[in-house]
Amino acid sequence: MSIRIGIYGYGNLGRGVECAVKHNEDLELVGVFTRRDPASLKIMTPGVKVMSASEAKDHAGEIDVLIICGGSATDLPVQTPELAKYFNVIDSFDTHAKIPTHFKNVDAAAKSGGKLALISAGWDPGMFSLNRVIAESILPGGKTYTFWGKGVSQGHSDAVRRIEGVIDARQYTVPVEKALEQVRSGKMPELSTREKHTRECFVVAAEGADKARIEREIKTMPNYFDEYDTTVHFISAEEMKRDHSALPHGGFVIHSSRTGLEDENSHVIEYSLKLDSNPQFTASVIAAYARAVHRLAAAGKTGCITVLDVAPALLSPLPYEELIAHSL
Amino acid sequence: MSIRIGIYGYGNLGRGVECAVKHNEDLELVGVFTRRDPASLKIMTPGVKVMSASEAKDHAGEIDVLIICGGSATDLPVQTPELAKYFNVIDSFDTHAKIPTHFKNVDAAAKSGGKLALISAGWDPGMFSLNRVIAESILPGGKTYTFWGKGVSQGHSDAVRRIEGVIDARQYTVPVEKALEQVRSGKMPELSTREKHTRECFVVAAEGADKARIEREIKTMPNYFDEYDTTVHFISAEEMKRDHSALPHGGFVIHSSRTGLEDENSHVIEYSLKLDSNPQFTASVIAAYARAVHRLAAAGKTGCITVLDVAPALLSPLPYEELIAHSL
Repeated sequence: MSIRIGIYGYGNLGRGVECAVKHNEDLELVGVFTRRDPASLKIMTPGVKVMSASEAKDHAGEIDVLIICGGSATDLPVQTPELAKYFNVIDSFDTHAKIPTHFKNVDAAAKSGGKLALISAGWDPGMFSLNRVIAESILPGGKTYTFWGKGVSQGHSDAVRRIEGVIDARQYTVPVEKALEQVRSGKMPELSTREKHTRECFVVAAEGADKARIEREIKTMPNYFDEYDTTVHFISAEEMKRDHSALPHGGFVIHSSRTGLEDENSHVIEYSLKLDSNPQFTASVIAAYARAVHRLAAAGKTGCITVLDVAPALLSPLPYEELIAHSL
Repeated sequence: MSIRIGIYGYGNLGRGVECAVKHNEDLELVGVFTRRDPASLKIMTPGVKVMSASEAKDHAGEIDVLIICGGSATDLPVQTPELAKYFNVIDSFDTHAKIPTHFKNVDAAAKSGGKLALISAGWDPGMFSLNRVIAESILPGGKTYTFWGKGVSQGHSDAVRRIEGVIDARQYTVPVEKALEQVRSGKMPELSTREKHTRECFVVAAEGADKARIEREIKTMPNYFDEYDTTVHFISAEEMKRDHSALPHGGFVIHSSRTGLEDENSHVIEYSLKLDSNPQFTASVIAAYARAVHRLAAAGKTGCITVLDVAPALLSPLPYEELIAHSL
């Protein structure tokens, strides 16, 4: 019998989850909840009900795992604890600094309803977290580096769009190749923020706007750009549409440490992702963890968990015997 | 309180485990078992008992996890099931084709003694297995490629040493850069054995030996070399000692697949290892899994498991709160 999946929130990530469900034979999409008028929403899967977000909990019995596809800033801190009372849920909460608080809130809610919730699935947090924890556990005492990109940062793109005279903007985070090479050598360098990443902005300016001022405002923007070497390119709206419509991303987690009686040997572990579509990859990770959540919930587990609590075999649709015969 | 570790078998891997225990504050080495005369064995850790392998089970109460460091060909198929009756154990059984049988034997033995056994820890099987299973689960329907090297293959080195006129030999397995690039591009190429790896041999020949014959025998050796492009270098015993004493290894697991309603987006996941010392890295992996075995056994789990059954958080010495605050 298929695992019945619900999607709560139908933006880029929600559509990605819809596609990911189609790629997993044991998952079945049974409903999409939206805050918009359900009649106005056209989804890709024929025969699946689109319902109002406000009536979600009336459908608790029809859904095995509800995937909450809201944003981390304001949606998920409210939605995940609320929905975890009624559903087994997964979200992709990615505000790293606020994960402990979110975990606590979701844990209490899920336990009160006897449900299981997995938060912060995706690639960072998510696959990158898992790789940081495993690498640091098997090679203690070393250094771990996380690089992001090359890829579009939505937060930085939004920040540039808020500047006066900017019509549209796309910001790429780019890891510095020289820094990557130093890290891969096992030398465990100390790297400043500026040495690890550069930022590249593509901007459509309003007619007559002061481009020099826009460029200056970008490059000196606190938190977002002032600690980085930033390049700004002014392009036309047509070029933006033609060359920068996709949402690629990716990155690297590299850990190195030394072993031996006198630390005589060096080892480097590297995990990297090269993604054409950030939301579709995140959605694919979530789909696999939905399978695990269903299995763990069926085994009686409740409360909040993360990717760090999930054994790899639980992610796979294949029988364990097949995994140890062919993949181990 | 520390986790009390025993080592059974004191070769390269056993010495590696001894070093790995020193790198983990919560692990403590309490005994080494050897088939040699215990009085003849000098180990690196002061104050630790060296005992005869034959009396191991008399010390069952003193050891939380016994790490079995024998070879996969003849040692582990006998030792692991026998010892799993009395101890929580870990081995690094790496004969892929025989894992299901080994699993079954160890599972029955461990269950009969109420103990927990983890088999096939290391990097392949081990970290590579985990990466294959996770990548195939989150991006179904794609292709997974495993490349090994550059590194010393002990099995191939031994095979060359058995040729008449060969005094010593070292065989390096080398991944083909062009194949790696094709795989990384996300094009999912079909690659033959010959296209993925080359083999490079360094050979010390006996005085007066027929080098042309030795080279021919190597290159045409069934299973080991005949399907590969192999290079043979004849060197002196001094050069062998100076340049080829280490046991470096490593490799790559690369998975790619497509997502989207019409499979319009490509994604590449890559995991790689660059290891100065194959046995020390394997030992480091085993040390982290020993921690997990101790925790799972304490929670009542018995029988045989593999790395696929272990949640990442169980590998770490850090409290869960710290992991979600800093590593997630």
